[in-house]
Amino acid sequence: MKKENLAMLCDFYEFTMANGYYKNGFYQQNVYFDVFFRKVPDNGGFAIAAGLEQVIDYIRSLHFDEEDLAYLRGKGIFDEGFLAYLANFKFSGDIYAVPEGTPVFPDEPIMTIKAPAIEAQLIETFVLLSLNHQTLIATKANRIVRAAQGRTVLEFGSRRAQGASGAVLGARAAYIGGCAGTACTLTDELYGVPAGGTMAHSWIQMFDSEYDAFKAYCELYPDNPTLLVDTYNTLKSGVPNAIKVFKEVLLPQGKTKCAIRLDSGDISYLSKKARKMLDDAGLTECTITASNALDENLIRDLMMQGAQVDTFGVGERLITSAKSPVFGGVYKLVAIENESGEIVPKIKVSENTAKITNPHFKKLYRYYDRESGKALADELCVYDETVDDTRPHTIFDPNATWKTKTLTDFTARELLVPIFKDGECVYEQPSIEEIAVYCREQVDLLWDEVKRFENPHHYYVDLSKKLYEIKVILLSVYGM
Amino acid sequence: MKKENLAMLCDFYEFTMANGYYKNGFYQQNVYFDVFFRKVPDNGGFAIAAGLEQVIDYIRSLHFDEEDLAYLRGKGIFDEGFLAYLANFKFSGDIYAVPEGTPVFPDEPIMTIKAPAIEAQLIETFVLLSLNHQTLIATKANRIVRAAQGRTVLEFGSRRAQGASGAVLGARAAYIGGCAGTACTLTDELYGVPAGGTMAHSWIQMFDSEYDAFKAYCELYPDNPTLLVDTYNTLKSGVPNAIKVFKEVLLPQGKTKCAIRLDSGDISYLSKKARKMLDDAGLTECTITASNALDENLIRDLMMQGAQVDTFGVGERLITSAKSPVFGGVYKLVAIENESGEIVPKIKVSENTAKITNPHFKKLYRYYDRESGKALADELCVYDETVDDTRPHTIFDPNATWKTKTLTDFTARELLVPIFKDGECVYEQPSIEEIAVYCREQVDLLWDEVKRFENPHHYYVDLSKKLYEIKVILLSVYGM
Repeated sequence: MKKENLAMLCDFYEFTMANGYYKNGFYQQNVYFDVFFRKVPDNGGFAIAAGLEQVIDYIRSLHFDEEDLAYLRGKGIFDEGFLAYLANFKFSGDIYAVPEGTPVFPDEPIMTIKAPAIEAQLIETFVLLSLNHQTLIATKANRIVRAAQGRTVLEFGSRRAQGASGAVLGARAAYIGGCAGTACTLTDELYGVPAGGTMAHSWIQMFDSEYDAFKAYCELYPDNPTLLVDTYNTLKSGVPNAIKVFKEVLLPQGKTKCAIRLDSGDISYLSKKARKMLDDAGLTECTITASNALDENLIRDLMMQGAQVDTFGVGERLITSAKSPVFGGVYKLVAIENESGEIVPKIKVSENTAKITNPHFKKLYRYYDRESGKALADELCVYDETVDDTRPHTIFDPNATWKTKTLTDFTARELLVPIFKDGECVYEQPSIEEIAVYCREQVDLLWDEVKRFENPHHYYVDLSKKLYEIKVILLSVYGM
Repeated sequence: MKKENLAMLCDFYEFTMANGYYKNGFYQQNVYFDVFFRKVPDNGGFAIAAGLEQVIDYIRSLHFDEEDLAYLRGKGIFDEGFLAYLANFKFSGDIYAVPEGTPVFPDEPIMTIKAPAIEAQLIETFVLLSLNHQTLIATKANRIVRAAQGRTVLEFGSRRAQGASGAVLGARAAYIGGCAGTACTLTDELYGVPAGGTMAHSWIQMFDSEYDAFKAYCELYPDNPTLLVDTYNTLKSGVPNAIKVFKEVLLPQGKTKCAIRLDSGDISYLSKKARKMLDDAGLTECTITASNALDENLIRDLMMQGAQVDTFGVGERLITSAKSPVFGGVYKLVAIENESGEIVPKIKVSENTAKITNPHFKKLYRYYDRESGKALADELCVYDETVDDTRPHTIFDPNATWKTKTLTDFTARELLVPIFKDGECVYEQPSIEEIAVYCREQVDLLWDEVKRFENPHHYYVDLSKKLYEIKVILLSVYGM
């Protein structure tokens, strides 16, 4: 990647459309786009929103330089007026988004963009790319962390990531989702996600013997060293050599914190055997890290089998969300402002009914039970509606309108918060630790049924009566 | 991503090991690492090597700046001598690699690095990341392109890619694998992969009617416009409006090239119906593009059903290699130079026998049949062996040593070519078109049996007798 400004990381059709809007006089017309998704990866019950910070950085530095304009001019299809417009381009719209770390559900906006048509169109690809990627990885990390039931999970996948930003920002998203750290140094340097790591097999192969390699390592790093014990034979050579070196090098210095890492073989069997060997040697504070082809399913199985693992190092299956590697966020026009400034709702119908959009500029409410604190349901309302949580509030399922529920002792929270106002960032981005803590707190407010790994309870995302009626009218006009 | 130099995109353990090599006097010692993989994604028969150009760019600009050194110093575990060494770091080793676009097979090196231990270690993460990512996508693209049997395949997946470099370099790799172009503008600007695109649903929604939207588009872009016909109803509204506009706007200008795009519904059914409607209207030159959740399996089915699709726009399943999103290239120490400059082979044994490495600094030969031109087998030899293809040459299967084959009328080609020599790049990087053409030619030299999508013929990657014997001796020394 040779460019810092990613303005040109944009589907080419955004430029053909934007040029068309320019030529057809639409470019000053405000439009509203929603970012939402239809399905949770891995058939999970919810996703963890992430990637907003990178959208903010992108919008702030968004511009087209001479090289970009020369490239576009070379295509021979763009109006010079449009290119002049791009030369002075600056995002001037409003953006609302759910904060990073928020659990989110299908069919609700996780971001809403209000901007002149060209601006809203030109940011589509990068906005989707950033939210889709990091939400995917944060969601996967959260599954894995929940499977580990309090054991530490570390992100180890850079080398198998899909590109440099896949590695660096994937590690950031994994931290938001609950990982305790990463192997990726650059993610630590740029984003403050704690990076760590000790040795690969090559370290051991460089020395005349495994014992020499371990000894050299512990002498150099006596504070909580982790020794990789599977280069030759885990139980016959690796663990005995580790024990010998820990005793010879660490204990005389009064240091008892140390670890071994298993990277091949049967983790359940080897960890139990190794645990016993370490305990028998009096090294009860020595922890065990495991790191071979792990994901939430294998970790759940290992936990059930009583594997003696304290730390899981998760690589390729986390950094690519390997079993479900696509987060399908879409960017859909939901309203336009007409000449008199009225907001006119728009719908996209489709032969696939699941692809019909929720029209209009909307608010997204989450309702929490006052007693348990748990999240009860989300509701999409028209932008000018306000829910009063001091009074009973009846919600209904838009797919089965006779199913209603009246909320009484509840609190209402608006999830979409202002990020940009008239092109200026108005959002104070929390630190990465704050985001991770917030994520953990919010996931705790979901019922266990919603958090089930397979076939989770369907959390309700309802439409207000007003919004539902607008949708029905639009469907009758534009439907088949 | 805020940095152009990706020196710090490096697993933290590379730094702890490198510091250790420095302290233990190994840092001047030359070592040899191989990059190889064990399994082809999607259970295919071969992979397409890609990502070398980005490794070259990375090595050339590799350095540690003040900020990086300050970050590392802050960790409190690195020697000041080591940090001073990093401040002056420049790669000084040799790199050999197979050219991009080459079909490659499991267990053979696609890159070999000879360098002082620290240097070889510090580049591990990025080298793997780059080769793994682009080889994954080039391999997937090649499967999809083969399934399309000569129809055009375009890469449309940026918004679902795993990060910015996943999008931009994924599109580059897709072009190497056989795609004709991409939607990603930045990949065109930076790498010369032709970008194209016309309109999203939002374009149509911006106008008062679909007809108005199509008309405005064709008036602006009369040269081969593609109209998206599924916003409201493909056959009742989209295709009839497209036909009307093509006739009203294009034909009077004497233009007959145009296209429609189907993005939802049943592609097979809709494309046949649309084809008939277009032909009946005399628009026989109007082509049909399809773009909904495609991959090689669906394209193969659509082709079997006689779908009337001329161009496939492939998105998320290509840009993430969705069914097999990990390319498992590894970086293993295969030899070290001792004090007298001798190259000493090294092996990594493992409780998983599949994880045992092929030791030593090696050559990789590919043998082609002189008559058919087809690739017959690959052979790994020790670096100082030379195969004379003017004389019969007997190869054998290392997993079943009694299975031998004597090649007679054949040509031998060395696949690993010099990329860096003493830290200087000695490789003339071909253009992206040259790489794509070379890839197509080389894939044509594989037998159809190797190219089968499911359960392909196992292509032989043999070891020379000399290499095999070295491996057996090392296994007897280090094995269990």
